[in-house]
Amino acid sequence: MEAVSRVAVVGLGYWGPNLARNFDELGELAWLCDLDDGLRSRFAERYPHARTTADFAEVLADDDVDGVVLSTPVPTHYPLAKQALQAGKHVLVEKPPAMHAAEAEELVAIAEERELVLMPGHLLLYHPAVHKLKELVDSGELGEVLCVYGNRQNLGKIRKDENALWSLGVHDLSVILYLLDEEPTEAIAHGRDFLTQGVEDVVFCYLRFPSGKIAHMHLSWLDPNKMRKITVVGRDKMAVFDDMELEHKVTIYDKAPESAPTSYGEWRTRTGDRFSPKIPNDEPLKLECQAFVALMRGEGDARATARDGLAVVRTLEQLQGSLAGVPA
Amino acid sequence: MEAVSRVAVVGLGYWGPNLARNFDELGELAWLCDLDDGLRSRFAERYPHARTTADFAEVLADDDVDGVVLSTPVPTHYPLAKQALQAGKHVLVEKPPAMHAAEAEELVAIAEERELVLMPGHLLLYHPAVHKLKELVDSGELGEVLCVYGNRQNLGKIRKDENALWSLGVHDLSVILYLLDEEPTEAIAHGRDFLTQGVEDVVFCYLRFPSGKIAHMHLSWLDPNKMRKITVVGRDKMAVFDDMELEHKVTIYDKAPESAPTSYGEWRTRTGDRFSPKIPNDEPLKLECQAFVALMRGEGDARATARDGLAVVRTLEQLQGSLAGVPA
Amino acid sequence: MEAVSRVAVVGLGYWGPNLARNFDELGELAWLCDLDDGLRSRFAERYPHARTTADFAEVLADDDVDGVVLSTPVPTHYPLAKQALQAGKHVLVEKPPAMHAAEAEELVAIAEERELVLMPGHLLLYHPAVHKLKELVDSGELGEVLCVYGNRQNLGKIRKDENALWSLGVHDLSVILYLLDEEPTEAIAHGRDFLTQGVEDVVFCYLRFPSGKIAHMHLSWLDPNKMRKITVVGRDKMAVFDDMELEHKVTIYDKAPESAPTSYGEWRTRTGDRFSPKIPNDEPLKLECQAFVALMRGEGDARATARDGLAVVRTLEQLQGSLAGVPA
Amino acid sequence: MEAVSRVAVVGLGYWGPNLARNFDELGELAWLCDLDDGLRSRFAERYPHARTTADFAEVLADDDVDGVVLSTPVPTHYPLAKQALQAGKHVLVEKPPAMHAAEAEELVAIAEERELVLMPGHLLLYHPAVHKLKELVDSGELGEVLCVYGNRQNLGKIRKDENALWSLGVHDLSVILYLLDEEPTEAIAHGRDFLTQGVEDVVFCYLRFPSGKIAHMHLSWLDPNKMRKITVVGRDKMAVFDDMELEHKVTIYDKAPESAPTSYGEWRTRTGDRFSPKIPNDEPLKLECQAFVALMRGEGDARATARDGLAVVRTLEQLQGSLAGVPA
Repeated sequence: MEAVSRVAVVGLGYWGPNLARNFDELGELAWLCDLDDGLRSRFAERYPHARTTADFAEVLADDDVDGVVLSTPVPTHYPLAKQALQAGKHVLVEKPPAMHAAEAEELVAIAEERELVLMPGHLLLYHPAVHKLKELVDSGELGEVLCVYGNRQNLGKIRKDENALWSLGVHDLSVILYLLDEEPTEAIAHGRDFLTQGVEDVVFCYLRFPSGKIAHMHLSWLDPNKMRKITVVGRDKMAVFDDMELEHKVTIYDKAPESAPTSYGEWRTRTGDRFSPKIPNDEPLKLECQAFVALMRGEGDARATARDGLAVVRTLEQLQGSLAGVPA
Repeated sequence: MEAVSRVAVVGLGYWGPNLARNFDELGELAWLCDLDDGLRSRFAERYPHARTTADFAEVLADDDVDGVVLSTPVPTHYPLAKQALQAGKHVLVEKPPAMHAAEAEELVAIAEERELVLMPGHLLLYHPAVHKLKELVDSGELGEVLCVYGNRQNLGKIRKDENALWSLGVHDLSVILYLLDEEPTEAIAHGRDFLTQGVEDVVFCYLRFPSGKIAHMHLSWLDPNKMRKITVVGRDKMAVFDDMELEHKVTIYDKAPESAPTSYGEWRTRTGDRFSPKIPNDEPLKLECQAFVALMRGEGDARATARDGLAVVRTLEQLQGSLAGVPA
Repeated sequence: MEAVSRVAVVGLGYWGPNLARNFDELGELAWLCDLDDGLRSRFAERYPHARTTADFAEVLADDDVDGVVLSTPVPTHYPLAKQALQAGKHVLVEKPPAMHAAEAEELVAIAEERELVLMPGHLLLYHPAVHKLKELVDSGELGEVLCVYGNRQNLGKIRKDENALWSLGVHDLSVILYLLDEEPTEAIAHGRDFLTQGVEDVVFCYLRFPSGKIAHMHLSWLDPNKMRKITVVGRDKMAVFDDMELEHKVTIYDKAPESAPTSYGEWRTRTGDRFSPKIPNDEPLKLECQAFVALMRGEGDARATARDGLAVVRTLEQLQGSLAGVPA
Repeated sequence: MEAVSRVAVVGLGYWGPNLARNFDELGELAWLCDLDDGLRSRFAERYPHARTTADFAEVLADDDVDGVVLSTPVPTHYPLAKQALQAGKHVLVEKPPAMHAAEAEELVAIAEERELVLMPGHLLLYHPAVHKLKELVDSGELGEVLCVYGNRQNLGKIRKDENALWSLGVHDLSVILYLLDEEPTEAIAHGRDFLTQGVEDVVFCYLRFPSGKIAHMHLSWLDPNKMRKITVVGRDKMAVFDDMELEHKVTIYDKAPESAPTSYGEWRTRTGDRFSPKIPNDEPLKLECQAFVALMRGEGDARATARDGLAVVRTLEQLQGSLAGVPA
């Protein structure tokens, strides 16, 4: 296995510069690709060791390139990822990797056949606080998980070409599926398009899983208070990841229903300790980029990563169908 | 119009004592009725001017009784309210007045025919903070109202005979219908029964109104943090009623989406002042009891009060139907 | 040792009724004493088993009375406590037991000589959250305690006959001396009388102890936010008791300065877990009354209790002296 | 008056780079001066239009340089500022401009004599939230100001060569003197050096002004919670500037003591609205740099700026004296 995994960052708009910076710090940045001349020359100055081009084909033709990192507009994710995989490149693609489950399935199939990495950029899955939630769930500390719900409200720029489900919900959904390790049997969304016709800005999603667990997402660009929160309700304890907290992003509540001994069949809430474990301060994007490099080197389960990304797209499509009144 | 409106409080369990105390302070308490001897004698001591009985019929037979206040178990609301109305008494009945829309309709019909008050005990409708929200909505200060949502989570005793929809949701729903002054065309609930089979303890409700407005309720007995909150999102401003705040229960955010001038079709969030008006400290239950007395004296719109109560039951039934998988 | 310790509650104004209720629930209430006829007759009705009188001497003359509980106006504490001790009665006296150290010393001397209980009503010393703080300090979990500070701001009714130091500060001071188990060598107060001439409504107090520890109190009736908080800064961890929290009144921060290894002599703040232990919900006043009964029965260290109360008065007097510009 | 005011930034360590960036954005950056070769070459790359040198004299010798910006170690502020003023340069010097009042007076005298700007870098005085506080005070909206207090606790890196009074207190003190427009007649500090001998890490300061107003500062590097807050208590309203808030940094409480009509001489707290005005998002440092440029161009009151800086040093020296047990 080679020591260096040379990477091309494609798309230098909103998020691309962060990816470029991280891969540069990892010493893997080989190419910068964007159609915009201004962006290209600006980043060429900052990363003199990287080559630049407006031509995606030129990147794919370079045998020294191991991985392609796509942070281009959403509709281009699928065709560019497909081209890259077909050219034998590993792919890290911003979320969502495709806008239809069928397309995502096609990408996964190509990646599996050619033994390539297909990793969607689900940033939160590399957040130390989400790892802590996962640990709490898997270790059984919370007891049987009953319900997970996310609140992602009042977040910056409102997209006009992507609704709150795809733009905000993709974050929570990736975490919910990661924590529960199941795909929902029921996935229903409700919402409305108040600002731009056809683009829902307030969306509520309900998910039910084969195990009987449920999940919910409140996604909104129209809200007085900024919220980025995921709550996990277990039968023994509950945990909250609040990304608006500066320190102490995860809090565990030793709080659970318990049947009151004196009254037949009645339940009360037991309240015990509250605990916020120290969470490492590592930048999630750095961890994400490291994970991509590791997968390219054969470490970790590339197949599972690709399939998990597919599950997110499949569920989003199902939710979108119900939102639009179309049977999924 | 007589100066005194003599009232009988029926049911001295959980909530009845509060009603008795308030009607006593208003000087209207005439009867205390409960099947339990111990409760009766305890309250007889406290209110020596009131007569006590275990026999509901005795109360109804007393021509000096103008109004009957029912705080008995939920399944008895409808039959007792019906008897009382048929006996020519005004009725204040704890929520919900009936468990089926058809029953509530029957009660409303009797009350209208006999020109009697039929007032459901929707406590929040007498909360000064809710009056402030209503004033903000009706005055147009919030601009067009787009969405109202309620969070009622982690609340004390968990009922085993009433689910979170009926036990918690009735509060938010009464406020939502009061604020919007519409009945929903779509009312869908999702949820699960984790603690007691058949009794949903986590419920999410989505409502859509003829005007295009939407509403949502997150109702849960399984939650790490106690929430009692109603948020109103208007096109110009947003308002929150947070009943967990000691002071400053209502906050108005001069915050709204605005189209960014430089980018075609794009929206940003404008953030201006935040304002918490002084809200009177009056006890909502006292105001509710006063409102019942006023209605009995012919002040206010008794017909509208009864019909509003019916709308709440009708919507709850619709939500319950969808929750149980039964087409509403 | 007798099973019953009969108690007389003297003074039925602001706080006395709470004391009467608690001693009644403990089955020890024998007398109710107040100069006001209306108060006496009202409480006589509520506690028919207790005798009532306007004459303090009558209480003292009753050989069946073991303890006298004084909740009379502050200036009467010393003379009434002295009379009671001289009559051979145990005494629980509201804080402060005297307004001058010399008087408090006299009371302590009489109590010691006659082997009687002299317990000041320092309510916070019976608060489970303060016990938790004490446990954290004594067990060494916080490491060496460096600094304790209290914030008691914006509290209800503003006294015109007692300044913020005596009215508010007595609470924090009793806790600080209890936690540190030392008397300060330096005790300096600064402040001003904005509302009533000669009655300081904003007071800052600085204390320095023989061990080198320091303490501070911010006491104020003029503040936008209600605070009742005590913070303990240890060399290893820090703890906060916030009495405005509904749940989780005590929080322990695994947070401390640590010398940065790379830079000679420089310090950084290490931040680890945050933990809020479950604190029992017991009513502090009930625990206080139980403690008085226990002391009367010979359980616990009555001598230490009296001396601790003296230390509080001695420190208050020192602070008052510096506040008034008088050398202590 | 020339259109360009060419500026030399001296000291490229901790804070200097921010100053360089801002003066570059204003188009005024002419020189970068630092003894460290590495820093110089790094910033030379970033600002190719600026000249670099290790020799302060070279900067002073350049007739094209109008202003010198000093962000060097604190002990060098006074000698370098003096040299610069004597060379006829305007000076913006990081706080504090000198460590002794006599030195600061000397700088002010030179600046006045030579009609040069001597501006200390009191960043908070250029914070829009502080301007809002000043407006509230000066307009009389708060009523007579009674008390101002600052909390600056748990702030990042703990200095070993500068105590909490000089390192943290200089911020609050500059704001307090700016708001009250008076110099204190009494300035007393208490505190201790827990981490580094002789360097106080916890300091409490009390100030009393000729008008009778008082102020207080709680300064500490040893605290569980990060606080950066300034509270202004007026006779009619109160205002808080909380720099830890993301939005709504200033809150005005319509809250004040009022004499209770029924009880002679007693006071209660009246609670009305709470209001958080929109505060512009402008970066304070940018506004500070613009202010320096404006002063150099003859706009604003350079003399007052220098004298205000002197008042801060004079008060710090007085506080330091009392802290060290030296009579001021």
